[in-house]
Amino acid sequence: MIKRKIINDPIYGFITIPDGIIFKLIEHPYFQRLRRIQQLGITSLVYPGAIHTRFHHALGAMHLMTNAIETLRSKGVAITDEEAESAQIAILLHDIGHGPFSHILEHSIVNGISHEDISTLFMERLNKEFKGKLTLAIKIFRNQYSKKFLHQLVSSQLDVDRLDYLTRDTFFTGVSEGVIGYDRIIKMLTVANGNLVVEAKGIYSIEKFIIARRLMYWQVYLHKTVLSGMELLVNILKRVKELADEDAGLFVTPALAVFLFNKLSKKEFFNHPELLDAFALLDDYDIVCSIKVWMTHDDPILSTLCKWFINRNLYKTVIQSKPFSKAEVKNLQEEAMDKYKVSAKDVRYFVFSDEVTNDVYSTQQVRINIVYPNGKIMDFTKASDNLNASAINTVTRKYFVCYPKGLV
Amino acid sequence: MIKRKIINDPIYGFITIPDGIIFKLIEHPYFQRLRRIQQLGITSLVYPGAIHTRFHHALGAMHLMTNAIETLRSKGVAITDEEAESAQIAILLHDIGHGPFSHILEHSIVNGISHEDISTLFMERLNKEFKGKLTLAIKIFRNQYSKKFLHQLVSSQLDVDRLDYLTRDTFFTGVSEGVIGYDRIIKMLTVANGNLVVEAKGIYSIEKFIIARRLMYWQVYLHKTVLSGMELLVNILKRVKELADEDAGLFVTPALAVFLFNKLSKKEFFNHPELLDAFALLDDYDIVCSIKVWMTHDDPILSTLCKWFINRNLYKTVIQSKPFSKAEVKNLQEEAMDKYKVSAKDVRYFVFSDEVTNDVYSTQQVRINIVYPNGKIMDFTKASDNLNASAINTVTRKYFVCYPKGLV
Amino acid sequence: MIKRKIINDPIYGFITIPDGIIFKLIEHPYFQRLRRIQQLGITSLVYPGAIHTRFHHALGAMHLMTNAIETLRSKGVAITDEEAESAQIAILLHDIGHGPFSHILEHSIVNGISHEDISTLFMERLNKEFKGKLTLAIKIFRNQYSKKFLHQLVSSQLDVDRLDYLTRDTFFTGVSEGVIGYDRIIKMLTVANGNLVVEAKGIYSIEKFIIARRLMYWQVYLHKTVLSGMELLVNILKRVKELADEDAGLFVTPALAVFLFNKLSKKEFFNHPELLDAFALLDDYDIVCSIKVWMTHDDPILSTLCKWFINRNLYKTVIQSKPFSKAEVKNLQEEAMDKYKVSAKDVRYFVFSDEVTNDVYSTQQVRINIVYPNGKIMDFTKASDNLNASAINTVTRKYFVCYPKGLV
Amino acid sequence: MIKRKIINDPIYGFITIPDGIIFKLIEHPYFQRLRRIQQLGITSLVYPGAIHTRFHHALGAMHLMTNAIETLRSKGVAITDEEAESAQIAILLHDIGHGPFSHILEHSIVNGISHEDISTLFMERLNKEFKGKLTLAIKIFRNQYSKKFLHQLVSSQLDVDRLDYLTRDTFFTGVSEGVIGYDRIIKMLTVANGNLVVEAKGIYSIEKFIIARRLMYWQVYLHKTVLSGMELLVNILKRVKELADEDAGLFVTPALAVFLFNKLSKKEFFNHPELLDAFALLDDYDIVCSIKVWMTHDDPILSTLCKWFINRNLYKTVIQSKPFSKAEVKNLQEEAMDKYKVSAKDVRYFVFSDEVTNDVYSTQQVRINIVYPNGKIMDFTKASDNLNASAINTVTRKYFVCYPKGLV
Repeated sequence: MIKRKIINDPIYGFITIPDGIIFKLIEHPYFQRLRRIQQLGITSLVYPGAIHTRFHHALGAMHLMTNAIETLRSKGVAITDEEAESAQIAILLHDIGHGPFSHILEHSIVNGISHEDISTLFMERLNKEFKGKLTLAIKIFRNQYSKKFLHQLVSSQLDVDRLDYLTRDTFFTGVSEGVIGYDRIIKMLTVANGNLVVEAKGIYSIEKFIIARRLMYWQVYLHKTVLSGMELLVNILKRVKELADEDAGLFVTPALAVFLFNKLSKKEFFNHPELLDAFALLDDYDIVCSIKVWMTHDDPILSTLCKWFINRNLYKTVIQSKPFSKAEVKNLQEEAMDKYKVSAKDVRYFVFSDEVTNDVYSTQQVRINIVYPNGKIMDFTKASDNLNASAINTVTRKYFVCYPKGLV
Repeated sequence: MIKRKIINDPIYGFITIPDGIIFKLIEHPYFQRLRRIQQLGITSLVYPGAIHTRFHHALGAMHLMTNAIETLRSKGVAITDEEAESAQIAILLHDIGHGPFSHILEHSIVNGISHEDISTLFMERLNKEFKGKLTLAIKIFRNQYSKKFLHQLVSSQLDVDRLDYLTRDTFFTGVSEGVIGYDRIIKMLTVANGNLVVEAKGIYSIEKFIIARRLMYWQVYLHKTVLSGMELLVNILKRVKELADEDAGLFVTPALAVFLFNKLSKKEFFNHPELLDAFALLDDYDIVCSIKVWMTHDDPILSTLCKWFINRNLYKTVIQSKPFSKAEVKNLQEEAMDKYKVSAKDVRYFVFSDEVTNDVYSTQQVRINIVYPNGKIMDFTKASDNLNASAINTVTRKYFVCYPKGLV
Repeated sequence: MIKRKIINDPIYGFITIPDGIIFKLIEHPYFQRLRRIQQLGITSLVYPGAIHTRFHHALGAMHLMTNAIETLRSKGVAITDEEAESAQIAILLHDIGHGPFSHILEHSIVNGISHEDISTLFMERLNKEFKGKLTLAIKIFRNQYSKKFLHQLVSSQLDVDRLDYLTRDTFFTGVSEGVIGYDRIIKMLTVANGNLVVEAKGIYSIEKFIIARRLMYWQVYLHKTVLSGMELLVNILKRVKELADEDAGLFVTPALAVFLFNKLSKKEFFNHPELLDAFALLDDYDIVCSIKVWMTHDDPILSTLCKWFINRNLYKTVIQSKPFSKAEVKNLQEEAMDKYKVSAKDVRYFVFSDEVTNDVYSTQQVRINIVYPNGKIMDFTKASDNLNASAINTVTRKYFVCYPKGLV
Repeated sequence: MIKRKIINDPIYGFITIPDGIIFKLIEHPYFQRLRRIQQLGITSLVYPGAIHTRFHHALGAMHLMTNAIETLRSKGVAITDEEAESAQIAILLHDIGHGPFSHILEHSIVNGISHEDISTLFMERLNKEFKGKLTLAIKIFRNQYSKKFLHQLVSSQLDVDRLDYLTRDTFFTGVSEGVIGYDRIIKMLTVANGNLVVEAKGIYSIEKFIIARRLMYWQVYLHKTVLSGMELLVNILKRVKELADEDAGLFVTPALAVFLFNKLSKKEFFNHPELLDAFALLDDYDIVCSIKVWMTHDDPILSTLCKWFINRNLYKTVIQSKPFSKAEVKNLQEEAMDKYKVSAKDVRYFVFSDEVTNDVYSTQQVRINIVYPNGKIMDFTKASDNLNASAINTVTRKYFVCYPKGLV
């Protein structure tokens, strides 16, 4: 009897885990760590249901990959068992390099090293441990394999990563604006000239997908209170890094200590394998635990920020289409300096402005192509009968300012 | 103890029917007739789940009206109990004038009279029967009442009618592209200067609503196979009307006979109350029953079309953005004349072309207005950060040609 | 490219129709007729969403069959492609013999002939038309094939028929008490000693399934208002059959006329193939259309009952665990005789009592067996840790009396 | 304009937070702490979606309380605004005394003090802070208020706590066996003789609720792998408490240190207000962070257990209806002593047996009563037509043994 493990998923019902290397990878501590990293970081401060983890997302994306491969095969696309398994592995591990509260802390904890870099490091380490069985998966992940569509399923503007995270984030936040027809989209996938394309009758599902993604950006990922929480967290990490140099007795969990007390370059990270081991122990719990302790730290800036974070007393945030004038920001900063007794240098922990962009579909990147029954292939933005679909290519930019509640 | 009737609704869970006149209206034969008219006519030929009725939609819209009124009241908008009940009645009866397979047969059964006209006739009749208790409801329905927002809840570009039918049609077809956040939209409604407006933080829900509606048009309401079925039905009715003059023995259900054997003008309809009584007995069942019998009619055109309809052997339909050339259509018609032995005059029952338009949001009609915390009011297309939201104002037009399967 | 047809299903998302004979069977007029027969007959008078058809149920059950076969194969159960297709055909056609408003009219329209008999006739007819390609499907349907588990998937106490109808009826009625974990149950199916069994870890899903079915009986299938509507319909048919003998001019649709004006025995039905042709044209529409016309029939009993039916003015129904005394019923009948001016013989159209039973799991029939990891097989009622699971074997009986509203 | 805060909830759509004290209580650090305590503790090791928090559950239960009060008022039950608000507060705070991973650690962290005791302490503290505004809420919570039904809504065998947690746990685990008709149940609530009762037509919903709860116990709350994880966690805490006495340098987060290094009696807890302050800082993060560090502790037992926990290498668990014999357990223990080099005293950290009970409905506690249209009131188990409903009163007991994977 063939053994298969079944995992309950509130979205797809059941996710079937094939026996063999995939099951072993899921059991591996590197992968289990993803259970302790929330997919949407501090977003649960706004949407309390959004506490789903990267672990769950990775499983979900693998499930959709399985469905996508089944669909492609049913349409006559040749995919060997090894290729199928490797594509499943590639998507399973695509986010394994994420640190806690990423992307928020991506550049706070380890400077100049992206989560994709770390994912690659993890995959190579696992490839050694599993005696080369991940070689093809790594090739697919890096787009070095001849069947380009396999990489495009893992990473493109219409990959199973996006299909799962939009579906999952919508489900757990309860924001119905993000609902997409992931199953219909998958059923409409096919391959033309070696590339992933969408059958013409799926074009409305693609439109819906693009728009849902844009709405999710404004309503969830870049929600002003989410921005506020992210900025607060970044500021806490910045402040504690400033203090770390002088304060040897600073409480910090061992896993976080490695990265807090050392300024690591990308090169060091690549050359010192023990750093990856240390990273493999770092997760959301280290950050929250440390912040809880810092609530009583002597530094009034650090302790204030930490109290705000833990008790969800976030910055007030105003967001608009035009930049804030320097005067406006300066005005707020002066009030804050006065009220919180902070210097001009440190007031940036209390009042600051920044911008965000929402670039939902880019004709610069690999495009979403539509294939017609007659074989003609066309970029999605041209194929749409929505004459203005090309307009979605525009990048939208917004500006925001943050300041303590009760300041004005 | 206050008596209330509860009806199970697979979408909203439960719909509470207030005791009193609303309960009595729902029990009335005029309203019960809506049980026998499918909301989406022949759409179930494409989406087998779409067999929900106008009865259910009317109850659902009334439920949303109840919620909308509750929301508005909670925001301090003054609405008396009489106004609330009248708004509920107005939405409950807004579609009571629909005939079978409307809008398809709107102009086949009764010429030059719209379902709104008939709805008005029914409401007036009921108003007499209920001794004037519908007077305010009729005023609201006709936009003759001072509190304009009540009419706008019944009929505008963001009314509870649309909120319910999009939600309901999506649910029963299973087309996830049409999912809207009806509950969020309702929670965001408010009143400014006597008009219905939407709070600024609801703007993404409105975008989603507009786009979902457009997608539902292409994917469901104007789906090419749905068009094919509608055209077939219209052709059957046209043909039988041609034959009716000569064929006194034609089988037809009594309710349909009234309208088939007489060419009624709007004026006659208004002047002869017994015609409304006859209309009140007409529903989908009369049409389908008659068509089933006509499958064996002597006229080969009628019998052929009826067999196609009953056995779901619909026209093949090609749809495109450009008109079909006369030559293309003529070519097909000549083949059909040959194959089906029909005259040049009658070939239009077999081959024809037509167009459809999708005009999802119109700045010509009462607009959807967004209200900001500072009180500023702005048209939705300007308020949206989607710089091209104004583009959705464009009317999209498509062209299609229908011909018998196996012709080419 | 392999062609496959996809149908939207609001429950399962998509149902894939394999090309070939299955697609052709679905396109066949015999099968298309099921579009015009509601799965739950008059139940939509109580649950307005419950207007789903036998067509949709048959497709859904076929979909679950496909999943079940996939699961069994993944566990190493040998099923050839021909067997798989035949099992799909068997479930697709299992209900094709249903007449309108069955089971309600099963014995009103054709005496002494069950819908299973008629299904068999249809299958044999189709088998001829498709040159023997249904032979294996018919064997499976009749439990004459060696692999018993295939028949058990089609018809047993845990077949895909029940899995689909419970899920579908729950979905469309909105009665959450009937929700079952159909996907989990299917994933837990396996085969032992040639019989369908359930893996031990699925036992709670089976308990839930059994109980959900029992609750659906009381809350939907045998709901007192549903009973009331069914009895009214049966009475109408009885009355019109009484009148048919004398009244040659009685309006009746041609398809219904065949069965109304002739008293057909099972033997006649089997010997006269044209009767099956006639039956193939009979559906809900004939019944409702005829009843609408009978509302103005001269016979006051018939016209009264028909008006009640069309305008949903159903009998008042009282249901209880003990039989009603003869005196209670007689009392009501006397009042009815007086009020409606009917004879003692005819009063049974107005006042009557009857009983219903709910026999949810029977140890007399093929049982649901649970298989343990050690290979041990046990009847579900013994395997359950719910010490009283065996109790569910008990038949529950209820008694009801119907009488006109406003009588007492 | 009346201000109300709206929170997205993936289950109910939106939860409206009334302005005033309830909003302030939710913003309070004591309540915000519940964001960092998962509702189902380690259950997410089995059901990865089950990471919802006590914060979310408390909001959900408050939402259902609001609905329940609205239903009761609509049936004429007198409830003042103050009573309504107090009932909302009581349910909002009913679980505020829960510590991390409760109930698992209820007796590991603080001996002999229940979470209800701590909830009471928190409520009294908050009552002081809010100048007596919680007095009525506390009375309702403690069942010291004359309108008993208000307490029964907060805590009884059919309270909004259970309605929310069953619904929520089902939603996040994806275990459909637990689906209940919470909205129907609430609509069926009423009050008779001052007590909460259910209208007779809701009886099937109650049956479903009772059974769903029982199934959730076996399938989720007492799932053998969940038991395994809980036992592992309890053992870790036990072991570290043993070591704490000797090992002053043991890493432990400050909040946890208070409770780990001191053996606190209930009396001490009540008399030292600063202990409640310390407790208010303790959450899941302290436990997980500390366990991660203990993975490298010198004590091989502690480090082994902690590695198992973090890497989800749980005990293998066998569960059955009969107790395990002493010999069976001893046998396993001897193998473990040998393999892990542990003493007879310490082997209980590796191999042990225990039992669990599932007591779903108790006739000893306040019963669920059904009220009939004629005013008669009956215990649910007697009212059910399921003749064996009384059987659900039985307590089911199961026995399990845990041992390291790969031992046998």
